[in-house]
Amino acid sequence: MKAGGADVYLCASNPLSTQDDVAASLIKHYNIPVFAVKGENNEIYYKHINAVLDIKPQITMDDGADLITTVLLKRRDLLKGIIGGTEETTTGVVRLRAMARDKALAYPVIAVNDALTKHFFDNRYGTGQSAVDGIIRATNILLAGKAVVGAGYGWCGRGFAMRAKGLGARVIVTEVDHLKAIEAAMDGFEVMPMREAAKKGDIFVTLTGNLNVIDGSHFPLMKDGAIVCNGGHFNSEIDLKALKKMSKFVKSVRDFVDEYTLRNNKTLCVLGEGRLINLAAAEGHPASVMDMSFANQAFSVRYLVKNYKNLENNVHIVPEKLDNEIASLKLNSMGIKIDALTEEQKEYLNSWQLGT
Amino acid sequence: MKAGGADVYLCASNPLSTQDDVAASLIKHYNIPVFAVKGENNEIYYKHINAVLDIKPQITMDDGADLITTVLLKRRDLLKGIIGGTEETTTGVVRLRAMARDKALAYPVIAVNDALTKHFFDNRYGTGQSAVDGIIRATNILLAGKAVVGAGYGWCGRGFAMRAKGLGARVIVTEVDHLKAIEAAMDGFEVMPMREAAKKGDIFVTLTGNLNVIDGSHFPLMKDGAIVCNGGHFNSEIDLKALKKMSKFVKSVRDFVDEYTLRNNKTLCVLGEGRLINLAAAEGHPASVMDMSFANQAFSVRYLVKNYKNLENNVHIVPEKLDNEIASLKLNSMGIKIDALTEEQKEYLNSWQLGT
Amino acid sequence: MKAGGADVYLCASNPLSTQDDVAASLIKHYNIPVFAVKGENNEIYYKHINAVLDIKPQITMDDGADLITTVLLKRRDLLKGIIGGTEETTTGVVRLRAMARDKALAYPVIAVNDALTKHFFDNRYGTGQSAVDGIIRATNILLAGKAVVGAGYGWCGRGFAMRAKGLGARVIVTEVDHLKAIEAAMDGFEVMPMREAAKKGDIFVTLTGNLNVIDGSHFPLMKDGAIVCNGGHFNSEIDLKALKKMSKFVKSVRDFVDEYTLRNNKTLCVLGEGRLINLAAAEGHPASVMDMSFANQAFSVRYLVKNYKNLENNVHIVPEKLDNEIASLKLNSMGIKIDALTEEQKEYLNSWQLGT
Amino acid sequence: MKAGGADVYLCASNPLSTQDDVAASLIKHYNIPVFAVKGENNEIYYKHINAVLDIKPQITMDDGADLITTVLLKRRDLLKGIIGGTEETTTGVVRLRAMARDKALAYPVIAVNDALTKHFFDNRYGTGQSAVDGIIRATNILLAGKAVVGAGYGWCGRGFAMRAKGLGARVIVTEVDHLKAIEAAMDGFEVMPMREAAKKGDIFVTLTGNLNVIDGSHFPLMKDGAIVCNGGHFNSEIDLKALKKMSKFVKSVRDFVDEYTLRNNKTLCVLGEGRLINLAAAEGHPASVMDMSFANQAFSVRYLVKNYKNLENNVHIVPEKLDNEIASLKLNSMGIKIDALTEEQKEYLNSWQLGT
Repeated sequence: MKAGGADVYLCASNPLSTQDDVAASLIKHYNIPVFAVKGENNEIYYKHINAVLDIKPQITMDDGADLITTVLLKRRDLLKGIIGGTEETTTGVVRLRAMARDKALAYPVIAVNDALTKHFFDNRYGTGQSAVDGIIRATNILLAGKAVVGAGYGWCGRGFAMRAKGLGARVIVTEVDHLKAIEAAMDGFEVMPMREAAKKGDIFVTLTGNLNVIDGSHFPLMKDGAIVCNGGHFNSEIDLKALKKMSKFVKSVRDFVDEYTLRNNKTLCVLGEGRLINLAAAEGHPASVMDMSFANQAFSVRYLVKNYKNLENNVHIVPEKLDNEIASLKLNSMGIKIDALTEEQKEYLNSWQLGT
Repeated sequence: MKAGGADVYLCASNPLSTQDDVAASLIKHYNIPVFAVKGENNEIYYKHINAVLDIKPQITMDDGADLITTVLLKRRDLLKGIIGGTEETTTGVVRLRAMARDKALAYPVIAVNDALTKHFFDNRYGTGQSAVDGIIRATNILLAGKAVVGAGYGWCGRGFAMRAKGLGARVIVTEVDHLKAIEAAMDGFEVMPMREAAKKGDIFVTLTGNLNVIDGSHFPLMKDGAIVCNGGHFNSEIDLKALKKMSKFVKSVRDFVDEYTLRNNKTLCVLGEGRLINLAAAEGHPASVMDMSFANQAFSVRYLVKNYKNLENNVHIVPEKLDNEIASLKLNSMGIKIDALTEEQKEYLNSWQLGT
Repeated sequence: MKAGGADVYLCASNPLSTQDDVAASLIKHYNIPVFAVKGENNEIYYKHINAVLDIKPQITMDDGADLITTVLLKRRDLLKGIIGGTEETTTGVVRLRAMARDKALAYPVIAVNDALTKHFFDNRYGTGQSAVDGIIRATNILLAGKAVVGAGYGWCGRGFAMRAKGLGARVIVTEVDHLKAIEAAMDGFEVMPMREAAKKGDIFVTLTGNLNVIDGSHFPLMKDGAIVCNGGHFNSEIDLKALKKMSKFVKSVRDFVDEYTLRNNKTLCVLGEGRLINLAAAEGHPASVMDMSFANQAFSVRYLVKNYKNLENNVHIVPEKLDNEIASLKLNSMGIKIDALTEEQKEYLNSWQLGT
Repeated sequence: MKAGGADVYLCASNPLSTQDDVAASLIKHYNIPVFAVKGENNEIYYKHINAVLDIKPQITMDDGADLITTVLLKRRDLLKGIIGGTEETTTGVVRLRAMARDKALAYPVIAVNDALTKHFFDNRYGTGQSAVDGIIRATNILLAGKAVVGAGYGWCGRGFAMRAKGLGARVIVTEVDHLKAIEAAMDGFEVMPMREAAKKGDIFVTLTGNLNVIDGSHFPLMKDGAIVCNGGHFNSEIDLKALKKMSKFVKSVRDFVDEYTLRNNKTLCVLGEGRLINLAAAEGHPASVMDMSFANQAFSVRYLVKNYKNLENNVHIVPEKLDNEIASLKLNSMGIKIDALTEEQKEYLNSWQLGT
């Protein structure tokens, strides 16, 4: 963004997600102000959000929609200066569409998440690897032979299930959507409600964008020593308040691992305080999927600058042309060559007269 | 359809796809006239299509769009009686959209293929298993350790690649689409143009819906003994005319296996005369994916009967409500139970104020 | 064998395993007498075994040890002329070792099965693919999403589990050996006793070499419509007598599929009469694993002819040198090149002084 | 060991493998002297080995055989007090067998590595996960879509290949053994000599126990940016001396990542200075495979104490009975129940008369 001429200011999208050395480098080497520190509490987190808003941005770039929500709820004075925004995540897009339904969306926002070169890769291969990575870094547990429960079989959920299986785990999937449940079953996973899965899992990971997916009714059913973490978005996916209430004490047993001792003397380990495990205990997604996501961000901002006057205050998709351009650039950077349609083939696809 | 009150008449959608014993049973036990015989030539094939059209149908149900194409090109007299149609396949939908662009589509058609409960399952898990099955039945070849080239990474292509890998093959993917090519690479497959893949493959399968995907320029590059077949749609995916021209002789070495001896004395084996290998050498898709596809057909026809007056002469999707209903019925039939959203969760997904 | 100068006579090793067209071709084109017909009953089966013994062989080549057992129990007059034997299967080797323990083995036998170039490939990749193939040809069932119970996690069992998983099934393994059970679990399979698995499986396959692995106590626990078959060796792995006794009637619903209706009105489908499903319903193992197995047979016979005078009446392994020679020939035939140890590396592997 | 009554003294088996916090805890909480610090140089490493030898041990427990080699080459005075030893690794066992061939082995050693409950699990599932983990922690690279070259297809090599594939990599295997090369190919991997693989790989991992597996002839062939590391044993698997000689400069770009700039201006990244990547950049094998390995160590030491007088100065295997006992204990700890052979089945396996 900076190379393209923008003034860039950063805050965190998640209290545990900042890599402090990266933040320091952005400030020192790139002269980009960063208002974020790993492990900041909620108050500081919102203070930092307000700090970047204080510079009166023309464009907001969100990852979870906390920034735009703050604008809409508390900083409406800024609206006159803002020409548009972008959103990186599934969770954020769900919130934006709710805003749009409520007629609350006060400027056009591009759902970067919904670009094919974004969610096909970032959410699936990125989350797939990095969520598993976060669990292993936090616990050094062997996945082979473990029963791993993945809550949700969206793009993140199926990426995670695929990778956990690839490391030798037996994966159980929970879902609320019939179609995704059938897909999970046909991909070879066992599918059941969380109240059943709770009894069987060694490791639980929520990947839903919803809240209380693992709640107070599930904890008592779990095996002694079960591990619980979140690979979705906000730390509300696991009902930690309920867990705390039913626990005798909590003990930090390793970085990012809190051991809760329930009144029945069983212990449960919660990783990364229920925040995104790949950001809390690992380093987030690898560069080679984020490159496409961030290309979508950059292209979307350029598109906003050029076209904001014609865009309604709604959620917009990344134009297909930009999506395709990113795919083409990425494929090239991977050193992969593919076929091109011949003239004869193009014509065939546009005709219909020729059959058997 | 018959149980729902329809008069049903059948012809084949492909000259090699009829199972004669099934056809006989439909006639004998269900009193459904069938105009089809396995291995019929093109002339008979179209004669049979015209025979079912002679009964003056009100609804056409296609699998590849040969029926509707015949209506539009040669039997326009029937148009006044037809209220709508359905189409089962990707290939057929591509043709229908071309018709729509050409303003040639004379009645509304529902793209059954595009229902999620159809192409997610039938095209992926169905074609995946049955194409592999067709190859094994035709050749009894061991897939473990073989280099298998899959042309195309659409729903059928990825199903096939997944299953060939699952049987121990090393899969190479060719594509014309940048995005799908990146997906194939990130799914662990080698991606390259067909002219490179031609030198490396032991087995080639086209899954594209296009023509001449393997053509006269590729055959001479192939290894001695390479196997070539089609898992896509029409028998034009492989340019057999070119192959015949460059061959000294052709010999049938096993049911559904023709060995072509090229002038350079290398041999290539073509399976099922380049027609759909899962229909030619195996039994097509298993019932437990076709149940969802045919539920879409049945629901679509009911929908047409009730709503045809309000539908434009265009390609229509299966209403989401019907798609979801089928998913729910299917999941139930699989004996799988899942979670339901709580009221709190529904509300959360519809709200946007609550973030970090 | 014939090309090497042997007089060869064939009988079946299993009543359902003969491919009649192959038998006919061996007689007609190769002048090799074959005493076998697909589907022969037990009486004819043993009549045929005796017919080949009537030619007074010098070497017996077994696949399951029925031939040598007949010699030892009923045709001891032949012993003076026999210089040795070979055995192809795990099951046969288990029987031979029991003979050796009982001091009943009257001539040296080479356990071809135990050659690495045999059981690593034939039992694993061969059985893996062909057992799955047999099930699909018999039933055209979709494996994706099915719960498949594999009894046994030996070489055949793990080959089958690997391939069933590769086709999208959720595989449950039963075992009697602790070590193999841990391996199965760490390979991502669910492991449990058969009495538990019986309630969960859609498809059951025995791969044990033992008897009554699925017995009268298991059938009543199974789901309505469950499929039961044998991928191991003899048809005693499933207790069909017990099943018949508890059934109201049996009906053939498709080639190689018998539907048993239990007194509780649930139905179970038994494939291939409980005989080896890959031989009954498919074509047995592909040529590209049998080539190594049969090379072991041929090399072992040559070895016997040269060395029988020095071999005790015991079970012998294929000499490592022959095993390696076959590996080298096979790798070459696959067109694969590999590295060779450098002199420096050879020396390093033989030294011990050099460490950190 | 301590709980069993032993006096235990620890040194490192590898200069980079010590976790300093664990060492501190052993000293502080368990009163076990530890002579090791992460990153010690060779001189200190051997000084520490000599320090533990100074306590005049009765039993040596090795992981790579540096300890016993030091005894045999430099501390022969200790031999009179030593009753036996154990060895944990494939590499160490290769060295011990070389010692035995040279008649240099001066006391009995038990090859713990060769126990089934050790190398089937530790070397395969342990190294498989932890080598991948080490690479990801060192680089945060996405494995999906990368070409990963694994040198060696022994137990460690196949574990690594399995896990890299499970994370979406395209794995290429190099081997010197024909049999293992065929297995790798039939497991779906591409097999080729290192000089070919060198041109194709994005990431290279040696898992051989040999030296100079990647040497000066391979580096110039590699792609710009290729990553090279060792998952085998000693840091001699990669010829870093040759690499240094052909490099213009070396730069540390991240913890455990050294970037070598060759004279042709291509860069290569070497991880963990060519030492075991899972120990250097991650935390070694997870507890749930090391439990079986260490149970073998403990049982072997107990066995030595009781039986050393009857053991020759040779390499001994872990008695099968102990191996089975460990399997049984482990399975129990995993909460897995399995079947037991019935009396009828036991009898059947010991009989041979009953066939078809």
